[in-house]
Amino acid sequence: MLLRALLREPTEYTPIWLMRQAGRYLPEYNATRKRAGSFLALAKSPAFATEVTLQPLNRYALDAAILFSDILTVPDAMGLGLYFADGEGPRFEHPVRTESDVARLAAPDPELSLKYVLDAVREIRRGLKNRVPLIGFSGSPFTLACYMVEGGGSDDFRQIKTMLYQRPDLLHRILAINAAAVADYLNAQIEAGAQAVMIFDTWGGVLAHDAFESFSLRYMADVLSRIRTEHEGERIPSICFTKGGGLWLEELAATGCDAIGLDWSVDLGRARKLIDDRCALQGNLDPMVLFAGDAAIEAAARRVLGSFGVPRRPDGGWGGHVFNLGHGISQFTPPEAVATLVDTVHSEGRALRRSS
Amino acid sequence: MLLRALLREPTEYTPIWLMRQAGRYLPEYNATRKRAGSFLALAKSPAFATEVTLQPLNRYALDAAILFSDILTVPDAMGLGLYFADGEGPRFEHPVRTESDVARLAAPDPELSLKYVLDAVREIRRGLKNRVPLIGFSGSPFTLACYMVEGGGSDDFRQIKTMLYQRPDLLHRILAINAAAVADYLNAQIEAGAQAVMIFDTWGGVLAHDAFESFSLRYMADVLSRIRTEHEGERIPSICFTKGGGLWLEELAATGCDAIGLDWSVDLGRARKLIDDRCALQGNLDPMVLFAGDAAIEAAARRVLGSFGVPRRPDGGWGGHVFNLGHGISQFTPPEAVATLVDTVHSEGRALRRSS
Repeated sequence: MLLRALLREPTEYTPIWLMRQAGRYLPEYNATRKRAGSFLALAKSPAFATEVTLQPLNRYALDAAILFSDILTVPDAMGLGLYFADGEGPRFEHPVRTESDVARLAAPDPELSLKYVLDAVREIRRGLKNRVPLIGFSGSPFTLACYMVEGGGSDDFRQIKTMLYQRPDLLHRILAINAAAVADYLNAQIEAGAQAVMIFDTWGGVLAHDAFESFSLRYMADVLSRIRTEHEGERIPSICFTKGGGLWLEELAATGCDAIGLDWSVDLGRARKLIDDRCALQGNLDPMVLFAGDAAIEAAARRVLGSFGVPRRPDGGWGGHVFNLGHGISQFTPPEAVATLVDTVHSEGRALRRSS
Repeated sequence: MLLRALLREPTEYTPIWLMRQAGRYLPEYNATRKRAGSFLALAKSPAFATEVTLQPLNRYALDAAILFSDILTVPDAMGLGLYFADGEGPRFEHPVRTESDVARLAAPDPELSLKYVLDAVREIRRGLKNRVPLIGFSGSPFTLACYMVEGGGSDDFRQIKTMLYQRPDLLHRILAINAAAVADYLNAQIEAGAQAVMIFDTWGGVLAHDAFESFSLRYMADVLSRIRTEHEGERIPSICFTKGGGLWLEELAATGCDAIGLDWSVDLGRARKLIDDRCALQGNLDPMVLFAGDAAIEAAARRVLGSFGVPRRPDGGWGGHVFNLGHGISQFTPPEAVATLVDTVHSEGRALRRSS
């Protein structure tokens, strides 16, 4: 169902999965994480990663699994030394700041230094037994560069933006290496069994309009041009998600992705018109709706489905929308709220198709 | 020059001022703050507020002063108990969460409980001696509500969004009171001598597209419909700034404001076309450019001026653009970078007009 929707083929209902669906709002996730000892130990163990990837599917009728992994596996494999300081976000021991830092960078061989991710993909596929498809993912070249240059999270992106405005040549070199690395990484995930891939451009939205095109969009397009669109006879759809990227939908649609992920600032109907239905859309419920109780969740889910509207396909079918949140699910979400959401999206999606 | 540009009348060059231009990047500001003892003591003393408001004008050829004050003066005057915890942002002792909290809220009389702000406006005007105009300001009704309901800053706006989705009636009551309070406050600033007013909708951009219109935009339009557009025979222009509001420019232009503030995610030329030059535009350099050295600052300032393009006015004049950053200036900015920016905007603005 998910794969058909991403390829804009007709579906009986609107499929749904949630960004960060395997995560801290689930008690069983927290139990596994405790057993693993740390987030990194969890992410780097194929057995644990498989366990937590499957957890939300055992609770909810979700239409996809997404590989549980960290967004910074690629720069970690480049030797930058990923670690998590107590109570803080991710940090790198060796941030990339100078000409010589950049000269040392190279795209890692995923079969060597990211084998634990590929093993997880294979193990998850075995565990899924084709119940639902598995989505692989990577951070976008620019989003990875943010962490690599800043050395961790940031609220003003001062280091990477100083490089962007002062030494654009250096940043372009980092981004070219990242694009090659991300393409190799996603291709390896596809070969290991990922049935769709998503590029998370979490920080592209902090760029100025002219910088977004040359420093984020262009390198996502480069990744998309290098990744396999088929594997063992099956089409592998791609999803691009730039958080805060609502102003650049036409540009995103032109990258060659099959689907665009949208945050909640964008009206799905307006987005469809703007890109003339060239891509499927994924999104875009405000995750905070999940705190407002069943009636509010049901109403808001109906509004999102309604805003997408009725696709006018020549074959009369209805596809092209994958329901999701506009951002990762909050760790404070009550787990029963997710059940309400999934059930509403499924039943309402069927009802809409019957009545249209 | 500033007032004419805001009213889309011809100007000889493009005027410039900077959001948070009186602030921590200036050593003289830090010295005054030290003498005042705390940020709140600084903001609540008309003498200190006047001193820091004038400081950047003594250093740079800026085209406007903006009242130095805190964005949370209004809810503080409502009795919510504003304080600053060590090393953290603003907090309220009495957040507004329940039906009875909301029932207790009322718009304060600015002449009584915000007199220190009006005194500052009067004292700044005397100090300015008409060198440049003084801009008054307030937070938007929704932005104030964010702090009032959350009890301080937030990264997910969970409290206010839960109220929005679960008890929209409660939030609408808060917003109606805030709109009345903000209108009274801005009118009092105008009567005390503010020559333009700006509404800072710092958090409107975190709302879903349909929520933005009913919970932020509508109440800004309400404020604009209540505030004086003239005082002592002079037009008082208004500026609306929704950070992250680039998707809603047509809606913002329809609020009745004279100018729209823009962050750096929006191309000024595209914005002008979209709103068909119905409002002036203020913005929109990425503040991080100021870290990249003189050559980068000059090039980026030229790009912003160029992106606005040549206004086609029937009288052949050129107005409608006020140069600014897309967000407040960073506290880490080297002060000499601001001199480069101001000089470039002035000289380049004159050169563009000559060559067009």
